[in-house]
Amino acid sequence: MKPINVGLLGIGTVGGGTFTVLKRNEEEITRRAGRPIRITTVADKNLALAREVAGDDVRLTDDAFSVVTDPEIDIVIELIGGYGVARELVLKAIENGKHVVTANKALLAVHGNEIFAAAQEKGVMVAFEAAVAGGIPIIKALREGLSANRIQWLAGIINGTTNFILSEMRDRGLPFAEVLKEAQALGYAEADPTFDIEGVDAAHKATIMSAIAFGIPMQFDKAHIEGITKLESIDISYAEQLGYRIKLLGIAKKRDDGVELRVHPTLIPEKRLIANVEGPMNAVLVQGDAVGATLYYGKGAGAEPTASAVIADLVDVTRLHTADPEHRVPHLAFQPDQVQDLSVLPIDEIITSYYLRMRVEDQPGVLADITRILADSDISIDAMIQKEPAEGESQTDIIMLTHQTVEKNANAAIARIEALDVVKGKVTRLRLETL
Amino acid sequence: MKPINVGLLGIGTVGGGTFTVLKRNEEEITRRAGRPIRITTVADKNLALAREVAGDDVRLTDDAFSVVTDPEIDIVIELIGGYGVARELVLKAIENGKHVVTANKALLAVHGNEIFAAAQEKGVMVAFEAAVAGGIPIIKALREGLSANRIQWLAGIINGTTNFILSEMRDRGLPFAEVLKEAQALGYAEADPTFDIEGVDAAHKATIMSAIAFGIPMQFDKAHIEGITKLESIDISYAEQLGYRIKLLGIAKKRDDGVELRVHPTLIPEKRLIANVEGPMNAVLVQGDAVGATLYYGKGAGAEPTASAVIADLVDVTRLHTADPEHRVPHLAFQPDQVQDLSVLPIDEIITSYYLRMRVEDQPGVLADITRILADSDISIDAMIQKEPAEGESQTDIIMLTHQTVEKNANAAIARIEALDVVKGKVTRLRLETL
Repeated sequence: MKPINVGLLGIGTVGGGTFTVLKRNEEEITRRAGRPIRITTVADKNLALAREVAGDDVRLTDDAFSVVTDPEIDIVIELIGGYGVARELVLKAIENGKHVVTANKALLAVHGNEIFAAAQEKGVMVAFEAAVAGGIPIIKALREGLSANRIQWLAGIINGTTNFILSEMRDRGLPFAEVLKEAQALGYAEADPTFDIEGVDAAHKATIMSAIAFGIPMQFDKAHIEGITKLESIDISYAEQLGYRIKLLGIAKKRDDGVELRVHPTLIPEKRLIANVEGPMNAVLVQGDAVGATLYYGKGAGAEPTASAVIADLVDVTRLHTADPEHRVPHLAFQPDQVQDLSVLPIDEIITSYYLRMRVEDQPGVLADITRILADSDISIDAMIQKEPAEGESQTDIIMLTHQTVEKNANAAIARIEALDVVKGKVTRLRLETL
Repeated sequence: MKPINVGLLGIGTVGGGTFTVLKRNEEEITRRAGRPIRITTVADKNLALAREVAGDDVRLTDDAFSVVTDPEIDIVIELIGGYGVARELVLKAIENGKHVVTANKALLAVHGNEIFAAAQEKGVMVAFEAAVAGGIPIIKALREGLSANRIQWLAGIINGTTNFILSEMRDRGLPFAEVLKEAQALGYAEADPTFDIEGVDAAHKATIMSAIAFGIPMQFDKAHIEGITKLESIDISYAEQLGYRIKLLGIAKKRDDGVELRVHPTLIPEKRLIANVEGPMNAVLVQGDAVGATLYYGKGAGAEPTASAVIADLVDVTRLHTADPEHRVPHLAFQPDQVQDLSVLPIDEIITSYYLRMRVEDQPGVLADITRILADSDISIDAMIQKEPAEGESQTDIIMLTHQTVEKNANAAIARIEALDVVKGKVTRLRLETL
């Protein structure tokens, strides 16, 4: 059968992995797609690198726009990243009737609504398995495997950099700044790690998953984003004493009155499988009304794991293109005209449980005062540790775990607690999910 | 758009769940399928039950053959089970140009080659997500999500009855027979639990997964099958002391010289996520050459979890039927003319590690004799415990973990060990996988 022609934009880590795996497993991939998949053109600013990776059998160019306007190209793989020129290229490809496969979580989180609307209008497919959780086929699970379900919520460890850092902080009791350096040295964190450690990358991915899971538009600008830069080793330790692990979770939850969309360090019971996902691995836990909880675990990044997702999309797009050459039913395109009108709730309306650590004067009545304040805000206590003061000291830590409450109640209670004379400094607050 | 018409054969647990979920989530499912999915006819021997579950809007019949010959029906859901009349019905449905969705692992493991060949010839789809691991979309992951990979091996906890029993045996130190009774009382085991506890059900599912993963024919008759009926609590305890859990695993491994296909109790390192899957939950660990290890976890049985998989298949079949009304590319059908010619290896050729427990006279030199025998068979020892004899007793247990070896070597060594005067009775042997 006639090959399907693919143009690859960007031959960095993932592009190189895609090229390599397509070649190594060509026979299996061709059998599964039903026809050969040929990268005919590679565009990259660095032509020397492109030639080194892609060899002489493909057309090489530093003009990506020539690829998205080439009538011979059926599918464009966008691996440039970011939302600058990548956005223009993707829209141009769609305009020219080409399907798009991308790994670009930032682009989709910020411009996905526009891109999917354009694709639907044109009747082409935009596939993005590689944009979330690397090689784990989570988008396919959400959109197809769980299509019988109303998704109630999902929670994911979807940034390997931060999960590696948290694992090391816990395993070795080291502070964040030291572990970050180590992560950079090992290649688990970028030279500029901001997007990862501040939770932005995880928020991009959580936004995309929320759109697929709930059939809502991308609302990245409304996501609540907290990274791990302020996390202290002492809290990891106290959490463990109480039977919890701390992970950076991307959470999306559907409620009657809106959607929660948030990224932040979260205490999880240690007996949950997801609490035991370590190092640079990813995992997404999904709750569906029919199937209950399902978990998907694997490598969230890397050349070949991400390439695995890119190529799975190529195979799907190729199969559907062959079955449906007039693009009558853009099965993989997001369908913006059927989205539900559910807005992302502001952070003070989320409902969750809390870990609170406060430094207090070791005096009678302090605990009673704090407990009273919580009760006044309708917050009940699930567990508590009160440490003995160190030798010769008058201050001590109180650590509390609360039951679920609305965040605004927690905010009010924390403000009142901080106003007490016996409470020194700020209350450290981390959210907790029993999952 | 015009609804697609579905005939449901069998309205027991899963059939009832399918009906319920299709109705409850009708709006979402219709949106995802692109058109309404209508069960127009239900066949069951028990018409009273059918009416109770399905109501008055569907045609009810006790004649399943009338459904598979009805020209108005596009898709047949087979939920009768077994490989008696179910086989005839499925083949008849295919003959009449209807797609088939089934949960019938026994039928596919035993007659799958014939069924898929018939479907391919006729250009119709046979979908079977519900046949393996309940609501976990594992078939979709193997066939589509991981389509870029050569699957190297997979290992699954794919029978909830036995996993529940093993969890209880470990948690409470109770013997197998007692926990089985409890499982039956709780509904986790059938009145006749043979297929589950003897590993046959797991072997059906492992056979199906091996065919999809490796592109080989079903070879259920060659699968090595051992259940949990002979497992002793003392071994669960020793395994734990050595840092392992015991699970009933369905394993499929691709080697250059053939395929391993086996079900048996297996020691797994406790730090593996899959070792911590408890109760009636299922999980499948898959190793692909590009993505590495991915794990899929969730409910392996139950009305709505299994219905979730049945309906996901209905949605897929409906989408493809719409895109490809002349069935030009039977994407979901197994393609028997392209299968690899890889045979299942006999059990004495598998390569694995072993847990060995033997009762010996507590004398000097015993350990040396046993170690010598193992070395003679090229078997090296990874770990060992030698228990102190009980007060006034002269015999004691030696427990060994070996490194990998060919099973025939282990068999030879075990025979020689058992022939030693100082060794009392048989050597207990369990296989061990580091995964």
